[in-house]
Formats: sequence, structure tokens, C-alpha cells
Amino acid sequence: MAVVHQSCAGYAAEPFASLVAAYPGDDVYPSADFRTEWGPIFHRGRLDGSARLLVLGQDPATHEAISRRILVGEAGQRVQGLLAKVGVDTAYVMVNVYLYSVFGQSAGNRHVKDDAIAAYRNRWLDALLVGTGVTAVLTLGDLAATAYGLWVRTLPAGAPSPHLVAVRHPTYPEGSARATGKPLSETTAALLADWNEHLPDLAAHVAPEGPTDLTPYAATWGPTDLAPIPEGDLPAGAPAWWRGVDAWAVRDGADAQTKRATIDVVVPEGARTWPAL
Amino acid sequence: MAVVHQSCAGYAAEPFASLVAAYPGDDVYPSADFRTEWGPIFHRGRLDGSARLLVLGQDPATHEAISRRILVGEAGQRVQGLLAKVGVDTAYVMVNVYLYSVFGQSAGNRHVKDDAIAAYRNRWLDALLVGTGVTAVLTLGDLAATAYGLWVRTLPAGAPSPHLVAVRHPTYPEGSARATGKPLSETTAALLADWNEHLPDLAAHVAPEGPTDLTPYAATWGPTDLAPIPEGDLPAGAPAWWRGVDAWAVRDGADAQTKRATIDVVVPEGARTWPAL
Repeated sequence: MAVVHQSCAGYAAEPFASLVAAYPGDDVYPSADFRTEWGPIFHRGRLDGSARLLVLGQDPATHEAISRRILVGEAGQRVQGLLAKVGVDTAYVMVNVYLYSVFGQSAGNRHVKDDAIAAYRNRWLDALLVGTGVTAVLTLGDLAATAYGLWVRTLPAGAPSPHLVAVRHPTYPEGSARATGKPLSETTAALLADWNEHLPDLAAHVAPEGPTDLTPYAATWGPTDLAPIPEGDLPAGAPAWWRGVDAWAVRDGADAQTKRATIDVVVPEGARTWPAL
Repeated sequence: MAVVHQSCAGYAAEPFASLVAAYPGDDVYPSADFRTEWGPIFHRGRLDGSARLLVLGQDPATHEAISRRILVGEAGQRVQGLLAKVGVDTAYVMVNVYLYSVFGQSAGNRHVKDDAIAAYRNRWLDALLVGTGVTAVLTLGDLAATAYGLWVRTLPAGAPSPHLVAVRHPTYPEGSARATGKPLSETTAALLADWNEHLPDLAAHVAPEGPTDLTPYAATWGPTDLAPIPEGDLPAGAPAWWRGVDAWAVRDGADAQTKRATIDVVVPEGARTWPAL
């Protein structure tokens, strides 16, 4: 019996066709601060009006540069697990603060309010939030919360906006441990405590599609806390391991120049289904 | 002034939505002979009925596994240059004999007539050739010519079919030099002589969109013989260097197992536009 595959149909319909035709380049995103050379990566999820929840992330990384959809790597799978808890399996859409990957730790902070960057981002938020069925916006990290606030300010006085749930970014544990020297176990516990705190508010503002499970996270990631990316979120023909929890894309290079230029794409061992070589 | 970008809208419209939902997997394409782990890669070019010429290639390679469109690497750019000679700049569509990259030199020859492989390929050829504006089919190499012949046999007696122009595969020079030990200069000259021989026939069976230049190829590749892939052929947001003539995707690995699992994606030096690191 033939398998029926699902895939993301992309940007053929308006207003998305016009949006992807007019993305800002390195005149707006300086290439000292953004990896513009990998091209813009626009979204993940539903563009057909069926989204009930919008996730606002920060910027794409290696897995996203190859799969051409955002929040596909480990950060995305942590978020996918959070959405599963509130019963949202497919009725979401995700966009980022930035179209391009941030280069350097502080670069991300400098540009969130840049006029041209915000203007283009706000066109996407208008398309996804004004007059749609989205009832809540989940922002990941401080930059995303700031960006959402900038969009809300563009609304006419008294206009309704979706309920905001602002949580820490899914890679806060790694970033914070690196920056402060705290143990990863401690920063992971802090993230999960933050997510637990916001779980009831998120659940209260999104109608679930399926069963919910509001059991709080433990102090560490549990075996079912990460969820794979649904097949229908990636373009047609994308390999299944592009959606899996095993990492498959990594920057590589002996010096900074080569490392910025290189992403190695490696089939994870569990997906090497070919006969022995 | 904002740049307006073109992109391939993909497979949202029928019959292509159904075709990409029902592609054959490794039950049909044995993973000993095909790199099924990289997923199927379906096409490049126009799916909107504007194609006048169908190009039938063989199988995707590294650049195609990442860009998710066929004939994007050097072979594709040689073909793009050939189409430019007959004045076909965008009015084409390309599909391959195989959805997956052939693994091993002889594997490709064994499966061209496999029933399930041919049946799915013929559904694409039906969609692109029956009742459309395609007047000629350009087959690249023997397997493509065989595959086209298999499709023609499925037509009702007396049904018209596009004019066939069967040329050598664009990577014949490299393959033949490797197989026979002949110098690459000699095998390149043989390919270009073959293409020269078929150029008038191709031109006679496709209405040009723009200026033609039927000047024969010299005995070696000239500076304008390769043409970059049009922006509108790749998905939205694809980096410009994915369409350029400098190679950017290579298999890598110290042993056969790792090499099958790995493609390194490297921004070509000419596209490293960021400030010095």
C-alpha cells in the first residue's frame, strides 16, 4: 500500500507570494551581524488560516539553513513538545524575529528595533494575526517579546491583539550556561520552571486540537519532552531524518572564515538504512 | 529600491500535489542501488503549463540533494547553456529517470525498466506531456532515451508524442574519461560534437522565447557555454550561490560509510561577501 506523504506547500498563495518576493537583503541586515549568505528562512507551519497559535522565535541556525524552515533543530523540537502539551499538534505557525542567522552573540540584540527589519517582520505578523483565528502568541526569549511589542504598537488604538505568552528561549539553558559558567543542569531547570509557570496561561488561551497533558516538566528534559517536526511542515520530499531529534547539520571549519562558509550535512546513524558498505 | 525575487512555487497545484504525496520509497528503489536516504527530488522548471521543452535527465547528485531541485549543479548548467542556444530561457520543465541518486556505477542501468519506477515516472510524463504545449523532449544519456521510449509505448496507438532529441549526458566527458582512460579533452570534444549534431534538430522543434545563437560549440567548453540556473527555479529564499557555476556541495568522508552519509555545503569563495573575520 502506497504511503501518503504530507508536505508544506510553501508560498504560492497571497500575501505570502508577495512577501517572499520582497525580502530584505544585506542592505537591511548587515552581513557583519547576520549570515545573509545562507538566504532568508521565512516560517514553519500553517499559512492556510488554520493556525490558532503563533510562535515567534529568534533566528534560524544550521538545520534551518538546509531544510529552509525555521525551528526544525533541537530548539524547534523543544517547542514542538511544549505545543503538544497544550494539545496543539498542527494548528500553529512560526516566524522569527530575524530572517537570517545572527552572527556573534551580541549582534542579535542590536537590530531588533531596526526600522526596515521591523517593517518587514510586521508585514508577516499582520498577515498572520490580523483577522485570523490566532488567539495566542508564544514568544521565545526577550528579543521575540520585544518584537511582538513593536508590532502591537502598530495597531490602531483599541484594536484587539492575541494574548501574549512570553517564555524563555528553548536554548536558554545552553546560552546561559555558556555565558555565566553555571551548570547546564541548573540553567535547564530554570528554563523548565519558566515554561511550567506559563503552561496554564498558554493552555487557557488556545483551543486544543487534541488531548492535552499539562503535567509540569521535571527539572531536566524527559524522554518525551522533545517532539519531532511533523512531515507536513517541511517541503515535499524532505528526508525523514530532517525532522528527527538526532542532529544532522553542523558548522565546520578550522578557522573562522571556513566555519562561517561551511555546514556539514550528515545522515544520523539511526537513519543509515542502507546495506553495509 | 526593493529587489523583487522570483522563486519556484512548488507542488501545491494538481496533479503535482498528488504526485509528491505518493512518491515511491525504498520498497521500489532498493537502498543498495539508490541513495534513498536523501529523499526524492522531483523536478526543476515550469509546472504551470508554460513549458515548451521537457528535459529528461538521469538522477540527482549533491547539489540537488540540498537545493531540492534537479539539474542544478554543473550538469544542469551545461544543459541550461544548451537551452539558451535555442532561445529557451524559462519555458522548460525537467524531470529525471530516477527520483533518487544512483549509488554505484552500474546500479543505474539495472532499474530503468522496473515496473514501479517506470509507472511513477510515467505519471509525471503524462502530466507534463499529454495535452500540454511541450513540442520536444531532450533526453540526456541512454537511460533517459530508454525511459522516454517506455513512456511513448504507453500511449494509445496513433497518439501524438513530442519530438525526441536524444543527446549524450552532460557529464559524459567525465564518466567516459574515468571508464576508458581517454583524456578528458577527447571525451569533452566528443560530447560537444554530439550536441552540435543535434542543435539544429532541437532548434527546429521548439519555438524560441528569445534570441537564439546556434553557433556550434568548440571542442572545449567556452566561457559562456555554462549558464546559471534562473532564480525562479529554486524555492523561495534559496541563496544566490546555489544557482551559480561554482560548486558548493561535495560528498565527504574517510570511509565509504561516512561518505554516503555526508554532504558538505560550502559557500564558494566568490560568495563570501561578509567582512573579514
